[in-house]
Amino acid sequence: MPHSLSLTAIPGIPLVAPGDGLAKIIHDCALAAGMPLQSGDVLVIAQKIVSKSENQYVDLRSITPSARAHEIAVVVEKDPRFVQAVLSESSDVVRYQKNVLIVAHRIGVVMANAGIDQSNIDHSDDRENILLLPHDPDASAERLRTELFEMCGAQVAIIINDSIGRAWRNGIVGIAIGAAGLTTLHDLRGEPDLFGRRLEVTETATADELASAGSLLQGQGAQGMPVVLVRGFTPPKQDAPRPATALVRDKRIDMFR
Amino acid sequence: MPHSLSLTAIPGIPLVAPGDGLAKIIHDCALAAGMPLQSGDVLVIAQKIVSKSENQYVDLRSITPSARAHEIAVVVEKDPRFVQAVLSESSDVVRYQKNVLIVAHRIGVVMANAGIDQSNIDHSDDRENILLLPHDPDASAERLRTELFEMCGAQVAIIINDSIGRAWRNGIVGIAIGAAGLTTLHDLRGEPDLFGRRLEVTETATADELASAGSLLQGQGAQGMPVVLVRGFTPPKQDAPRPATALVRDKRIDMFR
Repeated sequence: MPHSLSLTAIPGIPLVAPGDGLAKIIHDCALAAGMPLQSGDVLVIAQKIVSKSENQYVDLRSITPSARAHEIAVVVEKDPRFVQAVLSESSDVVRYQKNVLIVAHRIGVVMANAGIDQSNIDHSDDRENILLLPHDPDASAERLRTELFEMCGAQVAIIINDSIGRAWRNGIVGIAIGAAGLTTLHDLRGEPDLFGRRLEVTETATADELASAGSLLQGQGAQGMPVVLVRGFTPPKQDAPRPATALVRDKRIDMFR
Repeated sequence: MPHSLSLTAIPGIPLVAPGDGLAKIIHDCALAAGMPLQSGDVLVIAQKIVSKSENQYVDLRSITPSARAHEIAVVVEKDPRFVQAVLSESSDVVRYQKNVLIVAHRIGVVMANAGIDQSNIDHSDDRENILLLPHDPDASAERLRTELFEMCGAQVAIIINDSIGRAWRNGIVGIAIGAAGLTTLHDLRGEPDLFGRRLEVTETATADELASAGSLLQGQGAQGMPVVLVRGFTPPKQDAPRPATALVRDKRIDMFR
């Protein structure tokens, strides 16, 4: 177990546009801030800038809503084209009511609006853009990790995080939607506790805890700092890396689907 | 927004016993480690040591299970006395099946077994002790905060955290079950985003994110470090303090109860 860790928002990350090389931006900003990346670092990267760099924009005007999208749109009181975009990104509709549309994104995460949102997107031109999650966030994380390694030789771990609502609790928290180079879920079964008993609780969602920690520094609004460097993190045990999809509970064993 | 924060597990916290003055233990250990508490610090304290200091032990042999406890015990395959202890701590049973008993604790938190567990408890004597959550975790946090202020003049914030399972996701994460001296839930409605639009998402569960961050250092097992000092945290906006109960979604508006 680590005894201390630090989290620092990497300063100077510019607004990201489609096609921007995100790994290079992060690498250069970290270097310019006097904190060159090191092996063992964990980078918590806001989903939004990954999506932007991958051009996951969709113009609402290009979408033709289905009958189902129209039906749901009436209930949730949202633009039917937006509802169609949500449905197209989802494997299941979990719940909906006025103002709320909770789905299982096709990557498995249960979240409002399939993680699509319309904030922090430039509407200054005449398009009506929305921004989807990265197509495959685990693959995006792996790619960023590889590119950073090739750039500077550091073996860093990557978490792509987003903020989501939860059952039973108010407020959103950061979770990991993509990850590479670390174990997202630690199986602690069989580890002895302080008195030598076996722990009953089996798994800790380490990557979600890191995602929440990073979220404390990222902010949602005008002072957004989308990349947080976590230094000093030691996993509770050395397991093989697992992607963020390991954090998704299989629908068949989920009591709340 | 802060740009950097550090988390340090305070070394040397001894095993805590009923009646121990937890504030003094934390104060002295922080001082001995060369990191005297300062105003603005956030202490993330594992529920278990608060419960122990408040003698929230119950001897299973003192419990007589109700008919309902017996019924549920057959399904969940747990000791009916343990099930009775869980029911006595709960306002509602949310779900149960083999090995799983999810309830709403009377403080509102939906969690397995009402947060009662049997690990990290000394069974070396002939009692069959289990350990309940603190009776009123927000009050415990407030008391610790006041005692620490009287001891050293520092205005610290306190989070009492526990690790819980979630709907839809694997693995447990730290959440705040008690809090004092900070805003557990930040209302960001009306804050402008990068392009001057109003943010749609309204509330961030800051205290849960801090609780998860602290959990990364606390560990579950033999190297338990139950108190984590967070330094450098600046809340996203200055709101009046709110307790951890503000994080509990009202049952009447919860779609997953």
